[in-house]
Amino acid sequence: MTTRQSCDVAVVGAGLSGLYAARLLAAVGVDVLVLEAQTRVGGRTLTGHFSDGTFVDDGGQWVSPGQDRIASLARDLQIEMFPSWSDGRMVLLRDGIRSVGEGPIPPNSEANETTMSAARRLANMASDLPLDAPWTYADAPRCDAATLHRWLAERVDNPLAERVLSNAIEGVFARNAAPTSLLSALFWVRSGDPLVPFVAEGPVAPERRFVGGAQQLCDKMSTGLGDRVLLGSTVTEITQTEAAVEIISTNRVVHADRAIVTLSPTIAGRIRYSPGLPVQRDHLCQRASMRWAIKVHCVYANRFWAAEGLSGATMSDDGIVRITADNSPPSGAPGVLVGFIEETEALQISSANPDERRAAVVADLVKYFGAHAADPLTYREKHWGDDPFSRGIDGGYWSPGIWTAYGAALRRPVGRVHWAGTETAAVWNGKMEGALLSAERAAAEVQGLVVDNTT
Amino acid sequence: MTTRQSCDVAVVGAGLSGLYAARLLAAVGVDVLVLEAQTRVGGRTLTGHFSDGTFVDDGGQWVSPGQDRIASLARDLQIEMFPSWSDGRMVLLRDGIRSVGEGPIPPNSEANETTMSAARRLANMASDLPLDAPWTYADAPRCDAATLHRWLAERVDNPLAERVLSNAIEGVFARNAAPTSLLSALFWVRSGDPLVPFVAEGPVAPERRFVGGAQQLCDKMSTGLGDRVLLGSTVTEITQTEAAVEIISTNRVVHADRAIVTLSPTIAGRIRYSPGLPVQRDHLCQRASMRWAIKVHCVYANRFWAAEGLSGATMSDDGIVRITADNSPPSGAPGVLVGFIEETEALQISSANPDERRAAVVADLVKYFGAHAADPLTYREKHWGDDPFSRGIDGGYWSPGIWTAYGAALRRPVGRVHWAGTETAAVWNGKMEGALLSAERAAAEVQGLVVDNTT
Repeated sequence: MTTRQSCDVAVVGAGLSGLYAARLLAAVGVDVLVLEAQTRVGGRTLTGHFSDGTFVDDGGQWVSPGQDRIASLARDLQIEMFPSWSDGRMVLLRDGIRSVGEGPIPPNSEANETTMSAARRLANMASDLPLDAPWTYADAPRCDAATLHRWLAERVDNPLAERVLSNAIEGVFARNAAPTSLLSALFWVRSGDPLVPFVAEGPVAPERRFVGGAQQLCDKMSTGLGDRVLLGSTVTEITQTEAAVEIISTNRVVHADRAIVTLSPTIAGRIRYSPGLPVQRDHLCQRASMRWAIKVHCVYANRFWAAEGLSGATMSDDGIVRITADNSPPSGAPGVLVGFIEETEALQISSANPDERRAAVVADLVKYFGAHAADPLTYREKHWGDDPFSRGIDGGYWSPGIWTAYGAALRRPVGRVHWAGTETAAVWNGKMEGALLSAERAAAEVQGLVVDNTT
Repeated sequence: MTTRQSCDVAVVGAGLSGLYAARLLAAVGVDVLVLEAQTRVGGRTLTGHFSDGTFVDDGGQWVSPGQDRIASLARDLQIEMFPSWSDGRMVLLRDGIRSVGEGPIPPNSEANETTMSAARRLANMASDLPLDAPWTYADAPRCDAATLHRWLAERVDNPLAERVLSNAIEGVFARNAAPTSLLSALFWVRSGDPLVPFVAEGPVAPERRFVGGAQQLCDKMSTGLGDRVLLGSTVTEITQTEAAVEIISTNRVVHADRAIVTLSPTIAGRIRYSPGLPVQRDHLCQRASMRWAIKVHCVYANRFWAAEGLSGATMSDDGIVRITADNSPPSGAPGVLVGFIEETEALQISSANPDERRAAVVADLVKYFGAHAADPLTYREKHWGDDPFSRGIDGGYWSPGIWTAYGAALRRPVGRVHWAGTETAAVWNGKMEGALLSAERAAAEVQGLVVDNTT
């Protein structure tokens, strides 16, 4: 049963980027349709509930200082935000030794000085990297052949500083998946905020979260769009002529003037295109692999770690879960710890049965937070690498050589097909804010406008 | 118009691997169907003809000493082979200086000694690498984090030797696409024959070619299979239960007991699977990108280079075409030079118009072979990166970290779906011989047999 429809602009994907693009276009009278493969909206935002009704974000959730579009969208949609629980000291596990501290390095230590100085140097190198075209950076060929690890090894004469910086820069997106090119690291330093803890001049505002969860943004945008959002419609083919584009899904054919594809390059590359994608774009899709991670939550009766002056945050160089945070709701009860199992560890543990995985996660939390952590009321996990609609948390261009060879195809429209999604964002690439910025740009493109949202 | 059919084993792809698997299965009475997206068979073998009727291979063509399956298959199919034109001296262009020599390095030079000694060392390191499971190599974690280039830089104290070895090992599959991990290089050293010129004890037999072109192997196998080969049927979806597998194409649904997918991991990853592929397999597909290359031919009235004692072979560190060979037919007339435009150069030149590209290619040939090369009778090119059915010449696992993290998913069947294609071959990976070996293994798997064809 194939339904035929037509519209001005067809949007593929009802995540933050697709819905925001549709919302912007609908607001100016453009006739828009959004095709979504899943039977829900939200993409990589996904909010669930524990049995007591407490919301939990299995997907994207944190809003950093300076992410203004998403804060503004939340206000428009009447979704409240609250500061993420972060007071207290951090647990560090390094070389088998546990310690606690204000941050990852003792203040006034030599390691701290070295870290801050190397962070300033990296930030300075990144300061004139063109965010919308890293491949045009003056030193791009050399930086894209070099790796971040080698740069750190050669220039940071302190093993702790080296590790803290590589964790800060890579931990958020690419740890141990593949070597990160120095150019990618500089892009990330300027596009996101990994060095903020080391280069900020004053106190840094905490991350914020959405009361009730991040998926609400998509739910509410979708409600506003009504029957313009078509669920359960997996796009399999995009065919275009000079005059029009056809989006062919498992149950529809949508005839449109323009299309905006908001899927990550990897997933977008799995659609059949006629005519075929230009070779540089296709090869970009082949190389922009997704980051594999499992997001886990453990629920406790209360935030027992806070009573001990701990923030719930961990940075560890061992174990299955190496990064944790306090993910409790605004009320502070129950106490919720969130952890990430990334890449190599996800690979190791993904074939274990859920009980084994739970045991391994809990054992790590006990190492970090003591015996109180041993018996969570609830254990919950979301495997983003397994999710057939996203196959990972975020995608990237991190390996050496990718930005310089294929970067130019990242946002360049292919005829009537435009590209959005957080992986195409110049600023806050990989973040929810980046998804909105990319939508803003693509919505402007299809209207024949040019927008500079890199500043 | 969807046709429904059923069979014992459905094979996806009518290249060398798919047709050979079908041939082996049909020979023992297995009911087999081959689904091919294109309207021709042959996959990455593709034979055409110049206007005078001379055959030309736009795809795979060379058979190396020791590639016994393909030689035997050719005998069975009554396709003759002939030694590839290779007598004469090689043209070398290095740092802007042209020279000619018996091989890439002057014999009895220090560079030659250094090259031979490093080649022996690499061959020795590779000698106990398990070809069917490089990730289990004793030193795999370290070797897969290291790169070939760094190993060469640190251990080969002669710039010419270093360059010759990296060209020999990487030139054939991955030059400048991404850094090659040392583990990948060792796999390739043992799976293929890149170091043969440096470690062989006696004279090496020449490469051979097929009289009339390599695609004949597929054409003749397909003829033998008759209506079991279904052309123009693009597989879009593979659905399986415990009891059966369904192959859904653009015009058919084939119900089978087992499926053999012979596409490269990248292209195979673009099919929709239900249930979805296991995460390790999916992520392997995300990371096994194809090598981008343009194969070009220039035709001349005669083999003018032979009159000057040249073989037609070039190794150059500059220009658009950096590797050439004499690709003349058995009769020796007309004279045909073949060249490869690889990766970075393919990227640079692919957006130029055909006349500009021809001019750039011819200019390189003039640099290598003199003014006689300036005016080819015919210029011909095949862009494998653009080909929507293959998107490159061959695919690989060359970047650091891929073999160790994802290699185990390369051949492991997923339920009733088995994997073949040269990218899954333990021996002669990426070659036509590897395609046949992989077919032999997969055909055995679906019959419940186990075959060791790594020795």
